[in-house]
Amino acid sequence: MSRDTAFTQAAAALGYSFDGEIKLGGNYVALARDGHHVYVSGQVPRVGTEVVVTGRAGRDVTLAQAQLAAKICALRALALLQRSLGSLDKVRAILKVNVFTQSAEDFTQLSEVADAASGLLHEVLGPQAGAHARTSVGVFQLPKNATVELDLVAVVD
Amino acid sequence: MSRDTAFTQAAAALGYSFDGEIKLGGNYVALARDGHHVYVSGQVPRVGTEVVVTGRAGRDVTLAQAQLAAKICALRALALLQRSLGSLDKVRAILKVNVFTQSAEDFTQLSEVADAASGLLHEVLGPQAGAHARTSVGVFQLPKNATVELDLVAVVD
Amino acid sequence: MSRDTAFTQAAAALGYSFDGEIKLGGNYVALARDGHHVYVSGQVPRVGTEVVVTGRAGRDVTLAQAQLAAKICALRALALLQRSLGSLDKVRAILKVNVFTQSAEDFTQLSEVADAASGLLHEVLGPQAGAHARTSVGVFQLPKNATVELDLVAVVD
Repeated sequence: MSRDTAFTQAAAALGYSFDGEIKLGGNYVALARDGHHVYVSGQVPRVGTEVVVTGRAGRDVTLAQAQLAAKICALRALALLQRSLGSLDKVRAILKVNVFTQSAEDFTQLSEVADAASGLLHEVLGPQAGAHARTSVGVFQLPKNATVELDLVAVVD
Repeated sequence: MSRDTAFTQAAAALGYSFDGEIKLGGNYVALARDGHHVYVSGQVPRVGTEVVVTGRAGRDVTLAQAQLAAKICALRALALLQRSLGSLDKVRAILKVNVFTQSAEDFTQLSEVADAASGLLHEVLGPQAGAHARTSVGVFQLPKNATVELDLVAVVD
Repeated sequence: MSRDTAFTQAAAALGYSFDGEIKLGGNYVALARDGHHVYVSGQVPRVGTEVVVTGRAGRDVTLAQAQLAAKICALRALALLQRSLGSLDKVRAILKVNVFTQSAEDFTQLSEVADAASGLLHEVLGPQAGAHARTSVGVFQLPKNATVELDLVAVVD
């Protein structure tokens, strides 16, 4: 199965499609490329124009919902790479993923939230290109009250 | 208008000058360079020795004040690059900007705060070099009770 | 004194050893390498299987305890580099260090916490390779209720 097919299936399994415009605010770009490196801007779990998982993990949303949010963020990052490169087959490696979770005061399962994003990257890109260094922290707020925000650095052909 | 003039005008428009020493704490450096890449340390809205915007956005300070803080952080980052490179004309690209805002519990306009910094980078560096990937999150505290902290990665000649 | 000796002494001075397995959760890797660059995943102050400093700086733990946590995070990052490279002598430079501190609402000594990590990097790697750009922020939660999390980007031979 090609990575692009794996991407479409992973999105469909969650009931989402990323075919439309990928909305961005402000004076910045979704991806900044420098040679073989691409920096992907922080993605919130937005599908179309709606942020589909909002609120504080451990208070307003469950771990499972926060994990869904993390997967959607990862899918958006992949959708942006796919659109820019033509195909996810051009992703050589994911170097670093940062996962920010809007947390309740005592919600410490930040790694568990980030694992959902890491798992999705593995599922779509395979174990080699999908492997990555990672940092997960619990933050106080996120844009649009999103539950999760994720950014990454990729190496591409 | 040269970028260095645009920088001076942008600072003057806010009523600030960055001519003096740029104060740093501790055992780290303001900029770390590796080949054509420069990592700029996290900047708070300090002018001279004073952090001029402090407190929590959405509680102690307004969105407009937080946006001013973001602009000052961006100006400091540019001042450091200018001082190190001799001129901002040597900045090829800004790859990634991270904007951390000390937020009230329900303050979700993190992108709006970061837009002020992104706008300033555009204004000074122009639309091409000023474009950048970005991540904005709301954090619980910042050094010296600063309202905003910003770091970035630049590509330079 | 070699860097590897300096590392062992710095760990011993704190009463810790990093000889055993360095535990990682989930679908990610401790270090992702791309050419001469290594991204080290976010490290919490874990020794063996136990996170040894937990809770909120400025409420549950003192500044001194948070500084100890920051040093342990830095030692773990160095231990991972040493294990991967064979020796810390192969570290050319540390480009960027991010220090996230789980903070009380009014705890603003984030730079002071991060200084402990920066100081340790200097002590082990020397003033040239140990110099680095840095960002320190206060976050709302961290994995396993850790007091500090630290990640970094290194240039290696």
